Amino acid sequence: MTEAYLIYASSDREPNLFYWGHFRAPDPFLALKINEKTIAVVSTLEHGRCKKDSTFSEVLLWSDVLQAVTDQPVVDNVCKIILYLQKEYEISSFVIPDDFPAHLYETLKKLVPIKFDTVYFQTQRQFKSKSEVEQIKAACQLTSQAILYARAILKKSCTDAIQPFLYYRGKILTSERLRSAIECYCLKKGGHCTGTIVSCSKQAADPHCEGTGPLYANEFVVIDVFPRLNQSGYYGDMTRTFLKGVASMRQKQLFSCVRTCQKELIRRIRPGVNTKDLMQFAQNYFEQSGFGLRKTKGVCEGFIHSVGHGLGLGLHEYPSVGTNSVVLEPNMVFTVEPGLYFHDLGGVRIEDVVQVTSTGYQLLSRFPYQWIL
Amino acid sequence: MTEAYLIYASSDREPNLFYWGHFRAPDPFLALKINEKTIAVVSTLEHGRCKKDSTFSEVLLWSDVLQAVTDQPVVDNVCKIILYLQKEYEISSFVIPDDFPAHLYETLKKLVPIKFDTVYFQTQRQFKSKSEVEQIKAACQLTSQAILYARAILKKSCTDAIQPFLYYRGKILTSERLRSAIECYCLKKGGHCTGTIVSCSKQAADPHCEGTGPLYANEFVVIDVFPRLNQSGYYGDMTRTFLKGVASMRQKQLFSCVRTCQKELIRRIRPGVNTKDLMQFAQNYFEQSGFGLRKTKGVCEGFIHSVGHGLGLGLHEYPSVGTNSVVLEPNMVFTVEPGLYFHDLGGVRIEDVVQVTSTGYQLLSRFPYQWIL
Repeated sequence: MTEAYLIYASSDREPNLFYWGHFRAPDPFLALKINEKTIAVVSTLEHGRCKKDSTFSEVLLWSDVLQAVTDQPVVDNVCKIILYLQKEYEISSFVIPDDFPAHLYETLKKLVPIKFDTVYFQTQRQFKSKSEVEQIKAACQLTSQAILYARAILKKSCTDAIQPFLYYRGKILTSERLRSAIECYCLKKGGHCTGTIVSCSKQAADPHCEGTGPLYANEFVVIDVFPRLNQSGYYGDMTRTFLKGVASMRQKQLFSCVRTCQKELIRRIRPGVNTKDLMQFAQNYFEQSGFGLRKTKGVCEGFIHSVGHGLGLGLHEYPSVGTNSVVLEPNMVFTVEPGLYFHDLGGVRIEDVVQVTSTGYQLLSRFPYQWIL
Repeated sequence: MTEAYLIYASSDREPNLFYWGHFRAPDPFLALKINEKTIAVVSTLEHGRCKKDSTFSEVLLWSDVLQAVTDQPVVDNVCKIILYLQKEYEISSFVIPDDFPAHLYETLKKLVPIKFDTVYFQTQRQFKSKSEVEQIKAACQLTSQAILYARAILKKSCTDAIQPFLYYRGKILTSERLRSAIECYCLKKGGHCTGTIVSCSKQAADPHCEGTGPLYANEFVVIDVFPRLNQSGYYGDMTRTFLKGVASMRQKQLFSCVRTCQKELIRRIRPGVNTKDLMQFAQNYFEQSGFGLRKTKGVCEGFIHSVGHGLGLGLHEYPSVGTNSVVLEPNMVFTVEPGLYFHDLGGVRIEDVVQVTSTGYQLLSRFPYQWIL
């Protein structure tokens, strides 16, 4: 008798499930992990592909299993299948993630021993293997190439005497146009982007504002690109802030403050360091520089997000580098992305991806920090 | 005292949450719906953007609410906030969707009255408003333009005397190349694609195989495109099957069988019709044509998926047109996409989107069915 980890989800949305079988499917399916063995139960629609392409140890056909359990006095088909699996694989209890579907959980727990393991599912992907690091590196390289491409467009753009807009090849350069250039670039090189941020001026005061309308000279332009590699499923993530034209004293102060903070944060990364101390460092640093978190007209300004997030098969994964306590260990991979945001000036964010090594850190991509174009 | 619908999810992944506030966020946040009022509780990172851009009636700041409840003897922050909301809005009980996170549910149900409403969350978006239909139409129009663009490339491609590959502008035309052309086309017109299918020959025997490597003359090429409009969040979805060159008798039979089946299915759509009867019709039709579901060498062939799925803010949503019973009503919107799949020949799928009207149906896009190029 043994414990089985159990997931019922779409592997397009649940990186833990993708991690087990390296198989992408848009609709939910069932999967088990018993010691090193992984088992998937999929529909006729996915059966052939899952058998051919996935790394699951076993692939069962949903309708076959259902036929084998017609005698079960249970209404729900998913439960029927889980009961079958319990018997077939002599499972003593099921272990589920926190975000397991609640209704299924409520039904299941009347039928089988079932428990949560928050830590297992949160951390099973936290230490990246050599090949995973290579994939993240490849994704980060694609990201930096895309930003290089965007920077070249910004650099070549110009203003006319009448309007403060940037023009490129005779037409106004908008957030939408530059974003679509970046995303097409990634597509052609094997990566999919969603939500790429190209936000200028006041729009950039919201860290997740994607940006819309003309880009302006003499204003911050935040470019945040996070493509997912089609083949392996790993993410890259990088942000650079640019300014085409002439920067004001305050813009220079803001940029320099964020850049110094990021440098200091990265310098501190090594095994044994607690992520909440990194967060605290950034909070103190910005506070002392006069840029701490504050509220203006009911909306937050200053340093309004955490320092970073884990990166891998998920875009935001464990460890988060915020107020929670996580002690760094070798082969954790995460972003370092301090930022400052003000309603009048917009925002500055600089983001890179690091891997914790046995003695310190390794940057997983290289890209210049030069920002005035 | 009143009931409140409750969601805790990322609105990027949970269309019901996006539907409440028209606000996209990658990380989970809390939202309530009390009668017609919607309330979101978000982090400092999202607060400004959510206040400006969302349609939530109220936007609360996570840290403000937490500060207001420091006296609660509860460890979990999400629970603390829910308890605060319960008191503040005089909520008698919370109503949650089936896929609510199980661990949070388990903690919450010890603190507040909480219950599932499968039907509400499954069906709240099922009847599309006029403006929603317009958005889906726009997404479907983008989809058909992208397929038109792909068809033109296929049409202009050619073979040489030595290889059976298709060539376009002097280079081999691969699945990857045609897919990236389609997806860039959509990007430039304001739609994001993921998982676009361009699969040829045997690869197309798996309905969700995205396709890889050279495209061949005289073989089926299945092109399935489903972009999401950036602005409104609505999906389009269309599939056409093409063949460049000369089709065999069996290929012609297969195509004609799928096309006739789709025509017959669409003709049958009107209020009062049960979706499972549509599924049954397709099953019978394919069975009688000699193409029913079967297993060959342990893998399914023939008619191996359902007839269609609801479409809107979700790519696969209610109603599904499969073996479950759903009675059609005006303003339901779904795909009609019968398909046949064989290991030796590959697959044929034809997909359009229909809206149920008071007397019958309306096709939400137009595109020719001509397939031999």
